[in-house]
Amino acid sequence: MNELISSIKAFIRARDWEQYHAPKNLAMALSVEAAEIVEIFQWKEADEPLSPTEQEHLRQEIGDVLVYLLELAEKFEIDIVKAAKEKMLLNDKKYPVNLVKGKANKYTEY
Amino acid sequence: MNELISSIKAFIRARDWEQYHAPKNLAMALSVEAAEIVEIFQWKEADEPLSPTEQEHLRQEIGDVLVYLLELAEKFEIDIVKAAKEKMLLNDKKYPVNLVKGKANKYTEY
Amino acid sequence: MNELISSIKAFIRARDWEQYHAPKNLAMALSVEAAEIVEIFQWKEADEPLSPTEQEHLRQEIGDVLVYLLELAEKFEIDIVKAAKEKMLLNDKKYPVNLVKGKANKYTEY
Amino acid sequence: MNELISSIKAFIRARDWEQYHAPKNLAMALSVEAAEIVEIFQWKEADEPLSPTEQEHLRQEIGDVLVYLLELAEKFEIDIVKAAKEKMLLNDKKYPVNLVKGKANKYTEY
Repeated sequence: MNELISSIKAFIRARDWEQYHAPKNLAMALSVEAAEIVEIFQWKEADEPLSPTEQEHLRQEIGDVLVYLLELAEKFEIDIVKAAKEKMLLNDKKYPVNLVKGKANKYTEY
Repeated sequence: MNELISSIKAFIRARDWEQYHAPKNLAMALSVEAAEIVEIFQWKEADEPLSPTEQEHLRQEIGDVLVYLLELAEKFEIDIVKAAKEKMLLNDKKYPVNLVKGKANKYTEY
Repeated sequence: MNELISSIKAFIRARDWEQYHAPKNLAMALSVEAAEIVEIFQWKEADEPLSPTEQEHLRQEIGDVLVYLLELAEKFEIDIVKAAKEKMLLNDKKYPVNLVKGKANKYTEY
Repeated sequence: MNELISSIKAFIRARDWEQYHAPKNLAMALSVEAAEIVEIFQWKEADEPLSPTEQEHLRQEIGDVLVYLLELAEKFEIDIVKAAKEKMLLNDKKYPVNLVKGKANKYTEY
């Protein structure tokens, strides 16, 4: 992961792109890449498989999302894996097994 | 990271939520979480700092994005760090330093 | 529609919010509202009906999307209905009935 | 507007695409089109103008958003202009002029 973060920073610096990569813009880019993943699935049925081409496309878009997520997180010195672990602990409390098991309701409904 | 992936799987299994977490639905959830990050920045100026509350909120949303990204990637046996590294190699070719330095144009314009 | 556009402008002006409503920010807000529509459907099956509460929620989010779409379009003097009609004419050529009938492939695949 | 709605329905029917246009899928498509608008602005400064090509691109994407918004609304017999007008009345109460004038905070903060 650290190696990946370094290579992203070097990539940006070599292109003199820091000027464009304000957190606000990175948030936009992240959502655009997430939408490209949505696009792959939008007309598919829930259990419809992806073709090898679509799987490769998905793989690249997942890569893009992680790149922007890391770049954004770096701006605020956020360790994304640590942030996700802590969020999972919150989720454990927010969605108690005995209340939500087998149900997909929003937590505000409990 | 592996520890995080295991805890996500255990979280889903304990709640019997595999039935809802089709790849298509995970793609949607991922984009919804990305939008929650966009929401933090939408009315801000490019260089406007985040309050401590907003930073904590951002941290949690970044956690959410990573959780759904990992869950989606797992469905297709994609290693997200490897996918991002490979995408960076492609980007290196797609955006040659001598052509794009200091410019933000889309690659299709080169 | 013109009445709606006038009321949106009056709403913004009364709150002195023009300063926040740059086109870039309106684009972000539009996508955030679109994501709130996605959120309603994310864990649902394709043919699962919405509850009356969800339908009312959807109705409000659709209202929000139209408000931001109109506000953004106004900044560039775009008539949204005319733009959609012209886009439908382009779509008619892009997706010839004899090639796409019953298929959901992306147009780049034809 | 009614003319536009009719032409969208005819377009879908001629291509036998009703099978793909479940509300869930239309919500996804709507958010993907909204993201294409975000993409136009993502690396731009707040006050940076769009080129004629970008303006034409924006115009087409705005058309796409309206098309999917109308299609989704039709599924639930929602009149989008009426929904937006009613939402504006709610917004008027949610954001009282004396409290929010000149401020961009979220309504939950008042």
